[in-house]
Amino acid sequence: MYTINELQSFISAEIDKEISRIGQAEPKNLYEPVGYALGMGGKRLRPVMALLSCNLFSNTVENAIPAALAIEVFHNFTLLHDDIMDKAEIRRNRLPVYKKYNENVAILSGDAMSIMAYNYLLRCESSDTAQMIRLFSQTALEVCEGQQLDMDFESRTDVSISEYMNMIRLKTAVLLACSLKLGALAAHAPAKTADLLYVFGLNLGIAFQLQDDLLDVFSDQGLLGKRIGGDIVSNKKTFLLLKALELSDTDTQKVIQDWLGKDRFDADEKIQAITGIYNNLNIKEITESFIGDFYQSALNVYEEIDLDREVKSVLLELAEVIMKRDH
Amino acid sequence: MYTINELQSFISAEIDKEISRIGQAEPKNLYEPVGYALGMGGKRLRPVMALLSCNLFSNTVENAIPAALAIEVFHNFTLLHDDIMDKAEIRRNRLPVYKKYNENVAILSGDAMSIMAYNYLLRCESSDTAQMIRLFSQTALEVCEGQQLDMDFESRTDVSISEYMNMIRLKTAVLLACSLKLGALAAHAPAKTADLLYVFGLNLGIAFQLQDDLLDVFSDQGLLGKRIGGDIVSNKKTFLLLKALELSDTDTQKVIQDWLGKDRFDADEKIQAITGIYNNLNIKEITESFIGDFYQSALNVYEEIDLDREVKSVLLELAEVIMKRDH
Repeated sequence: MYTINELQSFISAEIDKEISRIGQAEPKNLYEPVGYALGMGGKRLRPVMALLSCNLFSNTVENAIPAALAIEVFHNFTLLHDDIMDKAEIRRNRLPVYKKYNENVAILSGDAMSIMAYNYLLRCESSDTAQMIRLFSQTALEVCEGQQLDMDFESRTDVSISEYMNMIRLKTAVLLACSLKLGALAAHAPAKTADLLYVFGLNLGIAFQLQDDLLDVFSDQGLLGKRIGGDIVSNKKTFLLLKALELSDTDTQKVIQDWLGKDRFDADEKIQAITGIYNNLNIKEITESFIGDFYQSALNVYEEIDLDREVKSVLLELAEVIMKRDH
Repeated sequence: MYTINELQSFISAEIDKEISRIGQAEPKNLYEPVGYALGMGGKRLRPVMALLSCNLFSNTVENAIPAALAIEVFHNFTLLHDDIMDKAEIRRNRLPVYKKYNENVAILSGDAMSIMAYNYLLRCESSDTAQMIRLFSQTALEVCEGQQLDMDFESRTDVSISEYMNMIRLKTAVLLACSLKLGALAAHAPAKTADLLYVFGLNLGIAFQLQDDLLDVFSDQGLLGKRIGGDIVSNKKTFLLLKALELSDTDTQKVIQDWLGKDRFDADEKIQAITGIYNNLNIKEITESFIGDFYQSALNVYEEIDLDREVKSVLLELAEVIMKRDH
């Protein structure tokens, strides 16, 4: 079996090949931004998951390459369009596509990437291809729904934790789950095992997003590579904020709502104030424990997966990589 | 066999059903604009083509409904995003999605529609489904390439007629061709006949777009439902303009280029001046003759289609409907 590092190198080389192929494609103004977006890198977590999952059932991972590329291209398409919608200033230390080129370019190149993702998946010559495309397409629509809910929450003050959990399930977790299941289907895994891998990925994906919320506030700034407290400054309805609103008394709730309502404020002062409230309410520990619950759910599913322990243990390594990704 | 009118009523009812289903879907802010975009109507030309083509080989058209819906949703997705890019003020006498809602809504709802198009096609439970999805997805990417070329041409002054023909093939004709072929595949038509229908649609599609260029200048304003000369005002590189540049002497070329270079001008004056040049150069007749060439190519392909004349003659009616659509 391949190690996670080996899979990362393997898929990075495949993606680089695609980037240079795309670099030759016409019209240039459509495809150059696609290559730029794909070239921004990142850990290639999702395509690695597809290959790794395939590798659980097959000595080779070649069959999962179409799915891995599809997922990576789709994921980067969502980042590309999200950056327009969020007016993001930076993406992985580089200019977002809509800033490097312009908004029209970003819209159309993103549209092309969404379609290209299907084209990659369609390279798969498996009897399970139709099922794989159905799963992928269903997941893709769910990701759009998650993004819409996230945007809806920006202007709402009454978001419940269960609504939030549904949002992160759709926006983040289903694509990780889909990555694992697609890899399994590419290797003709038994349906039950493929489904368990989906649920494993779903729980891990939720833990992953909650961890992201936590790291925004409680992390070493240098290691995270972005400003601490960005979510606090932008009033993002994270698990931490929603939990703090739930647990605090009326006075503290009012303090939080006052901060949320301010148009002009000193960012550091706001971060300090909200973080202070989080500390008083033990939000860090509560969130860590909640993350632990989903991590444990993933482990419970792991136990059910009908594969030799020495084979499937790579899933535990994957879980470690996902949860320790940024610090 | 069904008449074109019957197919139009039939698919309109199917689309209305989908619109009301989509109206119930959550999140509202994602799906309501999708319903609005689909509800704008139009002649449902492309889905009718899919049903009609299916009907050539099958007594029922039910099998082509997934493909018909996929194509209509995809086509409306392209209009939705094109309207953002073109800053369109109006679409079929209503506000474009990005104006009725906002740009972010239009981006994300469009993204969802693009994915939904695949989901409709995936409802098709045919042994040819994978082939149908490949054709659809390839076509979808070509449409994006066509849109990019069209945008590229805006800022270029050296567009050749062959480049223009390639652009309208991609932006407009391949989707009409794809509609016919998908309908045929849904009815398990012989591969050769399905391919001939594609080429028939391609030629018709090119004639259709050239006709569109012509009608922008030489048409009764009331019947067209939009301003005469819009393409002239916006410097659109139409066949008429490119042909006029090709045929005119140096002085006239300079007059045209001067008009193209003006930032401020009286619209009516510009329309009158350019139309005057078109008249001097017989551009109307030249374009009509060029349209006739593609129409004739479609008819030649029609002759090759291996179906009884009484069955396939509906394709001639279709051609009439397409070419006489707006006046």
